[in-house]
Amino acid sequence: MPATVTLLIEPLAADDLTSDLESTFREVDASAPALRVGELSTQRGDGIFETLAVVNGHAQEAEPHLQRLRNSAAICELPEPNLAQWHAAIERATAALPAEGEFAMKLVLSRGVEHGPAPTAWLSAAPAADFSAPRERGVRAVTLDRGLAHDAAATAPWLLLGAKTLSYATNMAALREAKRRGADDAIFVSSDGFVMEGPTSSVILRHGDEYSTPAPSGAILHGTTQLSLFEHLGELGHRTAYRDIPAAELASADAIWLVSSVRLAAGLTELDGVPVPFDAEETRAFNEYLLSPRD
Amino acid sequence: MPATVTLLIEPLAADDLTSDLESTFREVDASAPALRVGELSTQRGDGIFETLAVVNGHAQEAEPHLQRLRNSAAICELPEPNLAQWHAAIERATAALPAEGEFAMKLVLSRGVEHGPAPTAWLSAAPAADFSAPRERGVRAVTLDRGLAHDAAATAPWLLLGAKTLSYATNMAALREAKRRGADDAIFVSSDGFVMEGPTSSVILRHGDEYSTPAPSGAILHGTTQLSLFEHLGELGHRTAYRDIPAAELASADAIWLVSSVRLAAGLTELDGVPVPFDAEETRAFNEYLLSPRD
Repeated sequence: MPATVTLLIEPLAADDLTSDLESTFREVDASAPALRVGELSTQRGDGIFETLAVVNGHAQEAEPHLQRLRNSAAICELPEPNLAQWHAAIERATAALPAEGEFAMKLVLSRGVEHGPAPTAWLSAAPAADFSAPRERGVRAVTLDRGLAHDAAATAPWLLLGAKTLSYATNMAALREAKRRGADDAIFVSSDGFVMEGPTSSVILRHGDEYSTPAPSGAILHGTTQLSLFEHLGELGHRTAYRDIPAAELASADAIWLVSSVRLAAGLTELDGVPVPFDAEETRAFNEYLLSPRD
Repeated sequence: MPATVTLLIEPLAADDLTSDLESTFREVDASAPALRVGELSTQRGDGIFETLAVVNGHAQEAEPHLQRLRNSAAICELPEPNLAQWHAAIERATAALPAEGEFAMKLVLSRGVEHGPAPTAWLSAAPAADFSAPRERGVRAVTLDRGLAHDAAATAPWLLLGAKTLSYATNMAALREAKRRGADDAIFVSSDGFVMEGPTSSVILRHGDEYSTPAPSGAILHGTTQLSLFEHLGELGHRTAYRDIPAAELASADAIWLVSSVRLAAGLTELDGVPVPFDAEETRAFNEYLLSPRD
């Protein structure tokens, strides 16, 4: 069975419930040209995406990812995605992947070709990188100034802060800066001194028995993995909190995690060169939960 | 003769002076698939671009645009572009375009396919939109908060502010916001109250005989058209200044222009709903100069 799947998707209107969904998918070879140079995704990063994990034949948190895709589309004024169509695409691609192993599945909704009649959409899935080292042994991170106030989304919605857009050049540059400083990852801090998020992850802190994450003010992306983990922690009887977290609290945390859909939970071992308590046992429990089938 | 040209370019190392340049270009149909879905330009807006005008068979300011491409590549840690190769590509595409009329030529240098061995590059040229109305009758603009301090580039280079990256979703959202407010264009203002730039243009103000534009602090893009116009104004004996411009000075300006490579000079007629003096005669002279062959 192939270990990669690429589906070009002909986007349907959100209220189109009657189409033969299978006829809107076209499987292509990932190494073959599939997009035109006029694609606004490629010309201007003008589109949105989601990355979800497929673990042992199960697409993780498909519905929350699609809800976020819909939210990103609304912020970016893209046509509302047809979630039934996306669910069918995820299902078809998942079925085409090997029944065992971890895969990263990317969903892309682009504004389409300039002056074109419709958006463009595709799905591509490939084996996930081996994340056993960051999961088991943790990561070193640095804090980086995001330049924006933590409430910037409210005053400047055109910054698209709550949307997962394809304009990710800055996020990639932040990861390069982290590596330049001898670390593996980064935590963005707002210009007014609050913890925001990682370039490709959400931040969770533990102080005593309280697990906290930055309040979803709109300036950060709502993390599907963070949300799922908080639900799980709640079920276990733990206290979880969404709040404005001053960056200084990073230094007093009993543990800090960066959580994301494919790498899952990576505990911090070091922040800005200073050791951070690393809870190997709890991190293992987090990843065990995150690797179980979740919807 | 075709009115559009698309060249896929196999990027050469910057110091490769020996190759047969023509063999590194492949002309394709703009409507045919040419890029893979794994393209980082499309997945993450991870690449850089330039847009230059071709006017009556002459590629305008090719060298300054290529110098800026090289600067963007350095900021984004992309391999240094081979400028001789890009010049040859511009030349070939220009020769393939009709000898009369205005064209927009886009140069793209992407980080390439994920885990791929090399960056991807292409050039696409197509007829420019008809910009006679904004050139002759001006545009209405609104100011929009950019969320960042005017010196953010110095403290946070990972924001890539001085680079012309493909991550342009915010710029496009700003233009949509301007249209929602009944205007045509926008001027970004820094969080600390300084004039920055338009989403796709530079800002020039005139107070008496002084023409000013925001100092190239790194938080804005150095405008090739602005630079060319300032050189021209200097030759005419006018005083030009690069300085930090408080947003309040927009209200006291004798004239304000948004200048860009293809639309050229558009005078403001209105800012945030308040009339701005519009100098039709000087704007006409600016565009006459900007339409003349420039290198």
